[in-house]
Amino acid sequence: MSLGIVFLSEVFGTMMLTLLGCGVVANVALKGTKGNNAGFLMVTWGWGIAVFAGVFVAAKSGAHLNPAVTLGLLVNQKAEYAPGVPVDFASTLTYFGAELLGAFLGAVVCWLAYKQHFDEEPLAANKLGTFSTGPAIRSTPWNLVTEIIGTFVLVFVILTFGGTPSGLGPLAVALLVVGIGVSLGGPTGYAINPARDLGPRIAHALLPIKGKGSSDWAYSWIPIVGPLVGGALAGVVALWVPDIMPAIAG
Amino acid sequence: MSLGIVFLSEVFGTMMLTLLGCGVVANVALKGTKGNNAGFLMVTWGWGIAVFAGVFVAAKSGAHLNPAVTLGLLVNQKAEYAPGVPVDFASTLTYFGAELLGAFLGAVVCWLAYKQHFDEEPLAANKLGTFSTGPAIRSTPWNLVTEIIGTFVLVFVILTFGGTPSGLGPLAVALLVVGIGVSLGGPTGYAINPARDLGPRIAHALLPIKGKGSSDWAYSWIPIVGPLVGGALAGVVALWVPDIMPAIAG
Amino acid sequence: MSLGIVFLSEVFGTMMLTLLGCGVVANVALKGTKGNNAGFLMVTWGWGIAVFAGVFVAAKSGAHLNPAVTLGLLVNQKAEYAPGVPVDFASTLTYFGAELLGAFLGAVVCWLAYKQHFDEEPLAANKLGTFSTGPAIRSTPWNLVTEIIGTFVLVFVILTFGGTPSGLGPLAVALLVVGIGVSLGGPTGYAINPARDLGPRIAHALLPIKGKGSSDWAYSWIPIVGPLVGGALAGVVALWVPDIMPAIAG
Amino acid sequence: MSLGIVFLSEVFGTMMLTLLGCGVVANVALKGTKGNNAGFLMVTWGWGIAVFAGVFVAAKSGAHLNPAVTLGLLVNQKAEYAPGVPVDFASTLTYFGAELLGAFLGAVVCWLAYKQHFDEEPLAANKLGTFSTGPAIRSTPWNLVTEIIGTFVLVFVILTFGGTPSGLGPLAVALLVVGIGVSLGGPTGYAINPARDLGPRIAHALLPIKGKGSSDWAYSWIPIVGPLVGGALAGVVALWVPDIMPAIAG
Repeated sequence: MSLGIVFLSEVFGTMMLTLLGCGVVANVALKGTKGNNAGFLMVTWGWGIAVFAGVFVAAKSGAHLNPAVTLGLLVNQKAEYAPGVPVDFASTLTYFGAELLGAFLGAVVCWLAYKQHFDEEPLAANKLGTFSTGPAIRSTPWNLVTEIIGTFVLVFVILTFGGTPSGLGPLAVALLVVGIGVSLGGPTGYAINPARDLGPRIAHALLPIKGKGSSDWAYSWIPIVGPLVGGALAGVVALWVPDIMPAIAG
Repeated sequence: MSLGIVFLSEVFGTMMLTLLGCGVVANVALKGTKGNNAGFLMVTWGWGIAVFAGVFVAAKSGAHLNPAVTLGLLVNQKAEYAPGVPVDFASTLTYFGAELLGAFLGAVVCWLAYKQHFDEEPLAANKLGTFSTGPAIRSTPWNLVTEIIGTFVLVFVILTFGGTPSGLGPLAVALLVVGIGVSLGGPTGYAINPARDLGPRIAHALLPIKGKGSSDWAYSWIPIVGPLVGGALAGVVALWVPDIMPAIAG
Repeated sequence: MSLGIVFLSEVFGTMMLTLLGCGVVANVALKGTKGNNAGFLMVTWGWGIAVFAGVFVAAKSGAHLNPAVTLGLLVNQKAEYAPGVPVDFASTLTYFGAELLGAFLGAVVCWLAYKQHFDEEPLAANKLGTFSTGPAIRSTPWNLVTEIIGTFVLVFVILTFGGTPSGLGPLAVALLVVGIGVSLGGPTGYAINPARDLGPRIAHALLPIKGKGSSDWAYSWIPIVGPLVGGALAGVVALWVPDIMPAIAG
Repeated sequence: MSLGIVFLSEVFGTMMLTLLGCGVVANVALKGTKGNNAGFLMVTWGWGIAVFAGVFVAAKSGAHLNPAVTLGLLVNQKAEYAPGVPVDFASTLTYFGAELLGAFLGAVVCWLAYKQHFDEEPLAANKLGTFSTGPAIRSTPWNLVTEIIGTFVLVFVILTFGGTPSGLGPLAVALLVVGIGVSLGGPTGYAINPARDLGPRIAHALLPIKGKGSSDWAYSWIPIVGPLVGGALAGVVALWVPDIMPAIAG
């Protein structure tokens, strides 16, 4: 498969991811929506199904949708990122670029869908929170720890999926994302995906959002570095314990 | 398959859709029910499972249940609407007519199921809201934009389903509808289906509902035009990116 | 298969159904539990998974768990209730009896699991509500209508399941029950199963529950007659529209 | 398969179980988290998906993750705990030890993920509640009864899974755990797993948690003995009713 198809596939898939994912936060956080204040469980279902939809859309390219997943596969010494897509420098950059662009575009479309509610919402923090994550209690080391743990769970469990045949298809990773959200999303809002956080943050910075306030660039590197470390760690640990991983790991 | 069977199948399936879909809104919105004020997440599960049930019932005719889906398939140049049902003028009209009639009938039965609670409910807006959608903030262009985006997601992701074999059956589209609800339902209540909105609105206008108030015909064209535009757009965009769509798209 | 095995299978399955089903109501309704006041959505998930568990347990006998399902299959002129179990007078009585006994036993075990919370709960209505259903607004004709509609949906959609192959197994009917609960459970608490209501009501009448109050026998016939009518109606309507039902209906 | 692989597999799987399981309680119970006070339904989804993830990770060793499951299989006279793992004294001890160690480690990692919120939380009871279960109303006999019933349901239904082919894979047991939580978790918080309770309790006792208070060792034996009795009882009852169990039970 050409890298052009990989790029297009990941752009569309990651766009679906942040359109639906940022959308559910908008619905819960912004003033006057029908789902206002509907609770954290709804947010996690929204992000879970956002992944679900994104995986269907990006099936051709293996539906990484997340640089931490791409990096985890690279570190795990996979031969291919998807059927017919060898792991090399060009393909890695293609995934990273497509994931970031898609995440940016999805956030732009989400803003259009909720335009009037962004205009009505008085708090700048709720507007940024719709685009990107922020910590409940700010602390560089502990916020990093939480994002590393959450992303480790995501990538490590994905690496074990092949060992249990099921008919769940994209539902398995969707439920996993719901689970990470409800269980490990409490301290940092579970970015667990550098593109999911950076793409919408760039959108927040560029879009003419009424009363938008700061894009909080001081925090922005944590949901990039944490997930990349967590994803790489999952790839490494999976190499250390080959006996419990699915047979054909390469 | 004869168009008579298609008609019957879609009538029954879309009837199931609005019976269960309008039902969950009645349960949450109307006075004195056991699910009163149970939250937006429950509403979205109700509509998701309404689609789930409708898809089983209308399996023979491909379970469109939605003119925006029918139009998306038409624009996407599919050869058949369902196995043995060619895409042509007569079949398209059959789907549209059956979907509208089924949606009307389901709303009538829902009214019977909740008859006493319609009688007890003091607010006319809650009664109409059980039948048809209305915007959180009224604005012709932005309400259209939201419905177009939501329906685009619905039809575009459905068009990609064939690319990822799974044993989920009707659960895939059900979860997708849950996801669109929680994520993009905040501004307009996600009609994303002209029949789902117009059929129950006609029922609201015709039924002898106590203290029912206006059927809000001024808004009624938006959940018709928006979804049709969104569905058609999904069919067009899928033609533009054939490389990421399932192999046999026609 | 002998009717003795059918009996045992349905007793165990229906016992699982009311143990988990009445359990979730106890958790939400009784004083001092960890899930106190956790909402209607949780109640519907509890009953849905109660069916899910019951279907696994009673797989051998076709997992009716519900006289309305048994009656629907009878009226629908099925040849067998389960592989190797012909439809006749003796087998029908076996299903009815086993379903009622199992539902009674499950409610007894539920009472044991929540014994201290039954003792602490001050309101007799909450105690009865854990065992059996009651209407939000009492009205013989309208309560019957609601139960008929809900059970019609249950049995009619079950009759269509064979037309859409999926790997969902017992999850399909579990989700259907969640959907009927959230959508049609508002007026009467969705018995949609005579055994599920009568068995626990008998348990309520017989058990030495502290401060239990009336078992409300005046209402008790409605969640028996309504579901039986709804199930039979589903079986009849399915015969009227054979063209949209799964091919091998008999 | 060597017992070393079984050990590693169960350690990783049970670690995933308590990391995500204790995590969702932390999110709901500890001060200042994004999911604070998000409700009991979210807690049950968290534990359900914790099992889901753990089953994928421990697939090689049959994913017991729970001494009550191991004991239930032993009592049920299974020949193997997993393909290639005979049931004997050494393998039983391996499962028990790995489950306990994994549960301990998962709780430690959970504490790291929520470190700042443990520091901020004023109530010692909420800290212990994140690690281990405690009764709503303390009573040795009734708390035991509730844990026995809940674990009986878990192990008995698992023993019937083989009788209904489905594509649900680990989702079946995950939903079962959600169901037991919502339905039978009200009185004791559903340990239904000695390792899940004891491992984190040891972690609570050993970790330098700020203001942690007592580890409540007086209660600690109930969520060990209750689940072991419940699991063994399920294995025994399944032997008593072979006719309704899946054909190849040994």
